[in-house]
Amino acid sequence: MEYAKSLARLIGQLERLPGVGPKSAQRMAFWILSHPREDAAALAEAILEVKERIRLCPVCFNFTDEEICAIDRDPRRDRSLLCVVAETRDLVAMEKTNEYKGVYHVLQGVISPMDGIGPELLKIRELIRRLEDGQVKEVILATNPTVEGDATALYLARLIKPMGIRVTRIAHGLPVGGDLDYADQATLIQALEWRREI
Amino acid sequence: MEYAKSLARLIGQLERLPGVGPKSAQRMAFWILSHPREDAAALAEAILEVKERIRLCPVCFNFTDEEICAIDRDPRRDRSLLCVVAETRDLVAMEKTNEYKGVYHVLQGVISPMDGIGPELLKIRELIRRLEDGQVKEVILATNPTVEGDATALYLARLIKPMGIRVTRIAHGLPVGGDLDYADQATLIQALEWRREI
Repeated sequence: MEYAKSLARLIGQLERLPGVGPKSAQRMAFWILSHPREDAAALAEAILEVKERIRLCPVCFNFTDEEICAIDRDPRRDRSLLCVVAETRDLVAMEKTNEYKGVYHVLQGVISPMDGIGPELLKIRELIRRLEDGQVKEVILATNPTVEGDATALYLARLIKPMGIRVTRIAHGLPVGGDLDYADQATLIQALEWRREI
Repeated sequence: MEYAKSLARLIGQLERLPGVGPKSAQRMAFWILSHPREDAAALAEAILEVKERIRLCPVCFNFTDEEICAIDRDPRRDRSLLCVVAETRDLVAMEKTNEYKGVYHVLQGVISPMDGIGPELLKIRELIRRLEDGQVKEVILATNPTVEGDATALYLARLIKPMGIRVTRIAHGLPVGGDLDYADQATLIQALEWRREI
């Protein structure tokens, strides 16, 4: 059976979203169809508005709807501590811990030669420029513990260390509540390598 | 951390979609933010257009962007055979089999007293009216094999049988390729009850 044209188009558009397959795109489209016009309008408007209002913070490249993002405006944040993450969602995850009180720098990606993403496409130049005034005393590299994340961290460490700034990497190891028996080999090897005296 | 207002609003709107939790809503919102404005506009437009263009077919209550849906317009469909489904997505599933050549009637829901959905909220009156001209010789009740689906089928059977029309129910049983050992009790009981001589 062929869908009506505009329905097929909507399903196609929804399928482009991350984590949305044909089945869930269909489910969403039917949801939109069977709900009042105002619900669909609210969703469409929210999509357009976010593109209209949200921009990258010129300091840390977090998303913001103001000139400078809420974190960089907050006088209570420790500006001597800078955490480098790949994406805004990583920043959100860090903020949820309620532990970290420093500031951030969002690279907007990781170095990935396979995808044609070299360092020049990330916000690395901006990071180095930001470090030049000597205010930052430690840079925490919090890219993901993946091949690309590790490579990006290594690349940054080589750039930043010569500037006389302390460079640290978030720890690899077993997740809290994890089970040695279920941990993959790579994680176990890292957990051994990152061990420390207690 | 608080999201920028328009970003929080988009995440909230996306979370209303079926099967979308806070995490995937966030992922989708970031996807929209990091893609060109045209991509967001195409998605928003598709949502609005579908509400503009798609209506319910007045014959079978399938979604259509024409006066009468493609199935009801198709002269090759067997109008003596009518399959009753709860939702358009069930019709889509049936059509994908490429086996069924009759027509449909989409109830737009099932009877569910728990959710306050009585028969009067479904397209049941329209179904009965449709059966009155005597063209339909068999009604296949293809609501889901759930409590509500079964109850709705039973309700319809009681209405339609007195009209002298053959009423059938799609079979309950083990899925093809299924395993007795893994089947739940209810399915096994049904598979026994629906057994037939071979």
